[in-house]
Amino acid sequence: MKMKLKKGRLFKRHAKKAGLPPGTLVHVGERKIEKVRIRYIDYDEQELREKEAANIEECFPFKATPTVTWINIDGLHEVEIIEKLGKQFEFHPLVLEDILSTEQRPKYEDFDNYIFIVLKMLYYNQELQAIESEQISVLLGENFVITFQERVGDVFEPIRERIRNSKGRIRKMGPDYLAYALIDAIVDSYFAILENVGEKIESMEEDLVSDPTEKILQQIHAMKREMILMRKAVWPLREVISGVQRSETSVIKESTQIYLRDVYDHTIQIIDTIESFRDMVSGMLDIYMSSISNKMNAVMKVLTIIATIFIPLTFVAGIYGMNFEHMPELKWKWAYGGVWVIMAVITLIMLTYFRRKKWL
Amino acid sequence: MKMKLKKGRLFKRHAKKAGLPPGTLVHVGERKIEKVRIRYIDYDEQELREKEAANIEECFPFKATPTVTWINIDGLHEVEIIEKLGKQFEFHPLVLEDILSTEQRPKYEDFDNYIFIVLKMLYYNQELQAIESEQISVLLGENFVITFQERVGDVFEPIRERIRNSKGRIRKMGPDYLAYALIDAIVDSYFAILENVGEKIESMEEDLVSDPTEKILQQIHAMKREMILMRKAVWPLREVISGVQRSETSVIKESTQIYLRDVYDHTIQIIDTIESFRDMVSGMLDIYMSSISNKMNAVMKVLTIIATIFIPLTFVAGIYGMNFEHMPELKWKWAYGGVWVIMAVITLIMLTYFRRKKWL
Amino acid sequence: MKMKLKKGRLFKRHAKKAGLPPGTLVHVGERKIEKVRIRYIDYDEQELREKEAANIEECFPFKATPTVTWINIDGLHEVEIIEKLGKQFEFHPLVLEDILSTEQRPKYEDFDNYIFIVLKMLYYNQELQAIESEQISVLLGENFVITFQERVGDVFEPIRERIRNSKGRIRKMGPDYLAYALIDAIVDSYFAILENVGEKIESMEEDLVSDPTEKILQQIHAMKREMILMRKAVWPLREVISGVQRSETSVIKESTQIYLRDVYDHTIQIIDTIESFRDMVSGMLDIYMSSISNKMNAVMKVLTIIATIFIPLTFVAGIYGMNFEHMPELKWKWAYGGVWVIMAVITLIMLTYFRRKKWL
Amino acid sequence: MKMKLKKGRLFKRHAKKAGLPPGTLVHVGERKIEKVRIRYIDYDEQELREKEAANIEECFPFKATPTVTWINIDGLHEVEIIEKLGKQFEFHPLVLEDILSTEQRPKYEDFDNYIFIVLKMLYYNQELQAIESEQISVLLGENFVITFQERVGDVFEPIRERIRNSKGRIRKMGPDYLAYALIDAIVDSYFAILENVGEKIESMEEDLVSDPTEKILQQIHAMKREMILMRKAVWPLREVISGVQRSETSVIKESTQIYLRDVYDHTIQIIDTIESFRDMVSGMLDIYMSSISNKMNAVMKVLTIIATIFIPLTFVAGIYGMNFEHMPELKWKWAYGGVWVIMAVITLIMLTYFRRKKWL
Amino acid sequence: MKMKLKKGRLFKRHAKKAGLPPGTLVHVGERKIEKVRIRYIDYDEQELREKEAANIEECFPFKATPTVTWINIDGLHEVEIIEKLGKQFEFHPLVLEDILSTEQRPKYEDFDNYIFIVLKMLYYNQELQAIESEQISVLLGENFVITFQERVGDVFEPIRERIRNSKGRIRKMGPDYLAYALIDAIVDSYFAILENVGEKIESMEEDLVSDPTEKILQQIHAMKREMILMRKAVWPLREVISGVQRSETSVIKESTQIYLRDVYDHTIQIIDTIESFRDMVSGMLDIYMSSISNKMNAVMKVLTIIATIFIPLTFVAGIYGMNFEHMPELKWKWAYGGVWVIMAVITLIMLTYFRRKKWL
Repeated sequence: MKMKLKKGRLFKRHAKKAGLPPGTLVHVGERKIEKVRIRYIDYDEQELREKEAANIEECFPFKATPTVTWINIDGLHEVEIIEKLGKQFEFHPLVLEDILSTEQRPKYEDFDNYIFIVLKMLYYNQELQAIESEQISVLLGENFVITFQERVGDVFEPIRERIRNSKGRIRKMGPDYLAYALIDAIVDSYFAILENVGEKIESMEEDLVSDPTEKILQQIHAMKREMILMRKAVWPLREVISGVQRSETSVIKESTQIYLRDVYDHTIQIIDTIESFRDMVSGMLDIYMSSISNKMNAVMKVLTIIATIFIPLTFVAGIYGMNFEHMPELKWKWAYGGVWVIMAVITLIMLTYFRRKKWL
Repeated sequence: MKMKLKKGRLFKRHAKKAGLPPGTLVHVGERKIEKVRIRYIDYDEQELREKEAANIEECFPFKATPTVTWINIDGLHEVEIIEKLGKQFEFHPLVLEDILSTEQRPKYEDFDNYIFIVLKMLYYNQELQAIESEQISVLLGENFVITFQERVGDVFEPIRERIRNSKGRIRKMGPDYLAYALIDAIVDSYFAILENVGEKIESMEEDLVSDPTEKILQQIHAMKREMILMRKAVWPLREVISGVQRSETSVIKESTQIYLRDVYDHTIQIIDTIESFRDMVSGMLDIYMSSISNKMNAVMKVLTIIATIFIPLTFVAGIYGMNFEHMPELKWKWAYGGVWVIMAVITLIMLTYFRRKKWL
Repeated sequence: MKMKLKKGRLFKRHAKKAGLPPGTLVHVGERKIEKVRIRYIDYDEQELREKEAANIEECFPFKATPTVTWINIDGLHEVEIIEKLGKQFEFHPLVLEDILSTEQRPKYEDFDNYIFIVLKMLYYNQELQAIESEQISVLLGENFVITFQERVGDVFEPIRERIRNSKGRIRKMGPDYLAYALIDAIVDSYFAILENVGEKIESMEEDLVSDPTEKILQQIHAMKREMILMRKAVWPLREVISGVQRSETSVIKESTQIYLRDVYDHTIQIIDTIESFRDMVSGMLDIYMSSISNKMNAVMKVLTIIATIFIPLTFVAGIYGMNFEHMPELKWKWAYGGVWVIMAVITLIMLTYFRRKKWL
Repeated sequence: MKMKLKKGRLFKRHAKKAGLPPGTLVHVGERKIEKVRIRYIDYDEQELREKEAANIEECFPFKATPTVTWINIDGLHEVEIIEKLGKQFEFHPLVLEDILSTEQRPKYEDFDNYIFIVLKMLYYNQELQAIESEQISVLLGENFVITFQERVGDVFEPIRERIRNSKGRIRKMGPDYLAYALIDAIVDSYFAILENVGEKIESMEEDLVSDPTEKILQQIHAMKREMILMRKAVWPLREVISGVQRSETSVIKESTQIYLRDVYDHTIQIIDTIESFRDMVSGMLDIYMSSISNKMNAVMKVLTIIATIFIPLTFVAGIYGMNFEHMPELKWKWAYGGVWVIMAVITLIMLTYFRRKKWL
Repeated sequence: MKMKLKKGRLFKRHAKKAGLPPGTLVHVGERKIEKVRIRYIDYDEQELREKEAANIEECFPFKATPTVTWINIDGLHEVEIIEKLGKQFEFHPLVLEDILSTEQRPKYEDFDNYIFIVLKMLYYNQELQAIESEQISVLLGENFVITFQERVGDVFEPIRERIRNSKGRIRKMGPDYLAYALIDAIVDSYFAILENVGEKIESMEEDLVSDPTEKILQQIHAMKREMILMRKAVWPLREVISGVQRSETSVIKESTQIYLRDVYDHTIQIIDTIESFRDMVSGMLDIYMSSISNKMNAVMKVLTIIATIFIPLTFVAGIYGMNFEHMPELKWKWAYGGVWVIMAVITLIMLTYFRRKKWL
């Protein structure tokens, strides 16, 4: 029953910010890494430059170049970096504020020449046996994609590989396709978690049938809570992606639409699966409850059978344990044997009764 | 309690694919047959050719002919076949990818000169006592229908018969009518499963009333899970069919619309029935729970009646089993008889009490 | 516990039809009467002809006359009759198929010069204590109404009377008003069933309060199932009627609209009532469950009171029933009396305890 | 447990009407007063006439006058009165029929030169401890408001006072404002009932915590039913008022719109409150159920403690009550004292065990 | 179990008002402070005047000035103040009435040259362990914001500070931005409450796992009720803010729209969180119920084990306590030892049985 709950996991937010004017940049959330890391990949169909930047100013020149630039920033606690970047790329103050608040709901916002997307990366933390989330903010402009992560380590490595190696589709297409690829990678990683969860549900179901202990109840409950949290991350995704699809800015090209539709389908599939899992977990609770009732019933039956057989017998024995002077039976020769016969008869009657009641 | 769960049934997907660029063709799912089988039927009102093709290239010439061509491919593990076909017929890479991912949600997609439909064929596996599904992908163009199945064996045989024998409606109408006929066959097969499920529910209800065992609880739960899975296959069908109906491509002719409306009605009816079944299964759980409570109550009553009658009697016997030297009653002549009378009175009082409480 | 379930009541369908092409006419459902009966009433404001026709051809001439003709066919098993009628009146093959499938969902379909409505007539079968349904198909054209029933006997007799007797509104207005009157009669008959159900719920509630037996549980469950089935018949009616209202064909005249609105209101009222009944029936289940718990609690209390009073007393008696040679109390003169006093004290303490716990 | 249910309260209707043509005027419902009472108030900004009319014809002249006329009719059983009025004011027959059917759902209907509103007046019947409803029908035309009530006594008295006394807003504005004032008075009266219900819920909650008896279960259930009935009266009101607001007839003036919006807000607030109350009542049921379980648990503990302590002790006493000739302990001098020591030890072990289990 | 419920908390309203014409100004609600306090801040980018006004007339001149004026009124019981203000600023009588009714639902109303917003400020009352609400009415015009509060003390202090100190955005922008800032401050304060609630839920969950007492049940129930009340305050907020966004008046400038979108997102996040909390609280109830069942089961097992072991043993002892003259065993030498052996065997059998049943 060691349900280690990471404190404050359910809800934390804004504590630091109360009273500040909107648009004030303060990092709200846990500081998850030591040092902010800035990397960029700049590419077109022919060339590619990739570098870890020493400071954010290194990235500014790419604003003007026609090549696709993907700037990735791991770590949000150095507020000045985001501020400088925001000033250079002319992002709305509220956007910068949202990047820094890591308890955002996934959302999509349309600006004149860029769009802003907030997503959740989910990890299954084996140690805590719980799903953890990390906020990814994506800014997509005419010739750049900027991503913000809470810490180093993501699900984007395969995309980087594709950019580096292939001269294929990703190098030919614009930043909107890159943004799509990032979203797709995140959505794909949800499937892995769902698979994980699915397997756990199956193994729990088997345990539940063979041996319903209180530990399983805890697990069912924990699973239910995971579902609630996962749902909170995935449901808004639907609107986010359909928002991007309907975007009226020029940053999303026609040719990328079909890819977005594909991610949209995956999102729906994930939502469906989560809902199914919720139903199944609820079903397990019902099973658990009725298993307990069944076990209690079994316990009761044993008690009842033993007690109802022996209580009358003991009474009979008690009768002939009485010390009255005038108890004629006591002197009869076959009395003792007769008592045994009587007791056997009582027992038989009882057993027959229980058998008819199907308790045996 | 031998609930054999086919492992990984709840959810499996994408494991093989993580990190691959979208549009990479990889078969995701179980390999269900040995060898891919390609068959085609090419017909118009006058003529008909039917053949099992040795390789996919055999089918390519039909792309240009005005006759209706139905190419059916059983088995998805030979990716090159799908790749070649896709290149020849100019299908979008994502479509090919979707054909190969067998954990798709039923869906409908509109392209310029063809439409793409994913459906689920459901089978009732008698051995596992569970519903199994197989993915059917349908590509419908101006003069062709291409279907992909996971294995040999389907519900389309009657349609093939109709094409071969009759010179009736199906031979006169275009590929859109053929596609409708295929969808209709799938939806019709759902009815058979529902009938099966309905009968099972009825027999479970009867068992539940006569003898609510733990096995029935397992069955109820299994049934509930089947409903969840079936629902996942059928709910999206509604949107799929109404999507096909609203399709703005020229591949769906006006005259086929009314047939689609008919399938749509059937789909609604299936959804309705599934929802009713869900309600009924929930109701059975309630009944089961209260049956157990009732049985526990009955057990308790027996115990209580026996115990409350005999415990006081045994006490009385115990009193006169005491060895005090000064117990005047022990010497009375009618004491023993008197004790029996007292005990009889106690028993009568108890019985009257129980009768008044309606426990007897 | 004699819950006689008419087998296959939950769901039956299509068994006979699997594999047949759509539009093939096969009667799906039980054959409920011996011989098909065809009757027609042909009327205008001045005249009226009413007859039981020997064959369907007798009715064909009315297709051309300007008078209102109501053809009513009881019994669906003679498929040729429907086929001939369909050919003569040029109905769509799918319509004929739907007429013959008696497990249809209520629905409405708009054709160019006629509309097709499927409804459910509900009867309360006193013997089975269950609601039964019969399918009514209505075809409404410019100058005719054709109705199909599964058997003789319906709720339309008062309408026939009105046509025969009065020279009032029904004789003045067209076939759309007649169709409205038929729908209204069916909807009105639902009220009677609801009233019946309402009374049953009230009597069940009273029984539940006074004496919650297992039989009531069965009744509650049966009632719940009836509600599910009734809901299935009534919910779609809402769409059907609003569909007819929005119909763009010329067969529904402006002046009939307000009458349809009235039926629509009644349908909403019926749906509301069914939902309320469902809520009430659910509430009764809760009450039942807690009544059982309460009774178990009462049983437990009796057992506990008796056992906790007498078990210590019996122990005391047991002590002085021991045969040790050195038990000084046994020789004391007032020991026996003292034991009785001790026992009385124990009993009093126990009783006080129970009274304080409010168990007495 | 004296849950006096007024028979037929759940649902009654149409019994008298089955088979009659639509538009036939029959009073459906209970006859609640002896004699129909007709009153009218006719006013403009300057003058006012108020009278109890001897017959309905007295009111007819006002149809032509430009002043605002409010005719109020208490009692619906004299059908001819409604018939004459309908003929004079040219109301649609279905409207008259709806006025007479007192089991109507609140509704709104738009006619060319008048609108028809059905509302429910709710009373809290102290004697039955239940909410009762009375149907109010309102007909609003260019220069008149006609209201129909089932019996004498309503919530409109303050409005009459305002008309009589003030020369304020109500006298200046038209009949639409008067109709608004009537609706507002009815909606306001709902608040009083809600307050009543809210207080009852609070007092029930307190009782539930201090002493959960079966009577409270009855009350919870009764409350739940009241909520269902109240909901049925209030939910449709929302549509009614928004219907009146969107009315395209000229009878609702622009200036009255804002007042209707206000009533609409109140209606939403009432619906919100009812839903909250429903949630609370459900929560109480949960509490009740777990209280019973808790109490059963407590009972069980007492039994278990007493039994598990004394059963072993009694066994020990039983051992030394045996009559074997060769039982060496019986002759030992300290045996009796030793047995008491053994018993004390057993008791101590048991008590420690229970304390560790937190049963004591 | 000291659930101090502030009487009348669930619902109170309108009692004083019954029968008054709409638009009559009466303060409905508790009087929360002694004296009404009027403060105003009048500012533009350059200058700022802030003052506590002695009477409402002091504020009237600002109606004409182009500067932004924020009039804040704490306390609603002096009706004349609101009346005078309403007359001066030409507010609709119903608006004034709504300001005075403190049981309003959050709402938004659009007038020609001002908009009216009702909001709820929520406080967590530590003493009552309950959420309390205070109504805030906001009137926003071309050059003024007027706020009404029930008592002194609010969440607006930081905004006042910002106005006083900074020459930043708030001083540059119009009254619509000020209104936004006020709404934002209120919504932000909800986050603090949610955080509070979240922590409480987490600590309750831990208690629930370690020691499920009846006190926790009370807490769960209280929490559930808080959620219901909080929901009532927050759900309408969604519509309010989206209403303000869609406002067609000129008082909301284009540039403020994006800020409103931000608040809207926060509101959605709050609603999401409340729903998650509701789910969690429901889950806790389930856990509680099954914990109790589990405990009962454990109690039953102990009783059953003790009873089923000792009852047969006691019976054996009873047998040899009988006083028959002819009981050969009594004279056997090893009989007593043999009885002990028999008893040991019985005990072993029982223990083995329990172990196999996993009760030990």
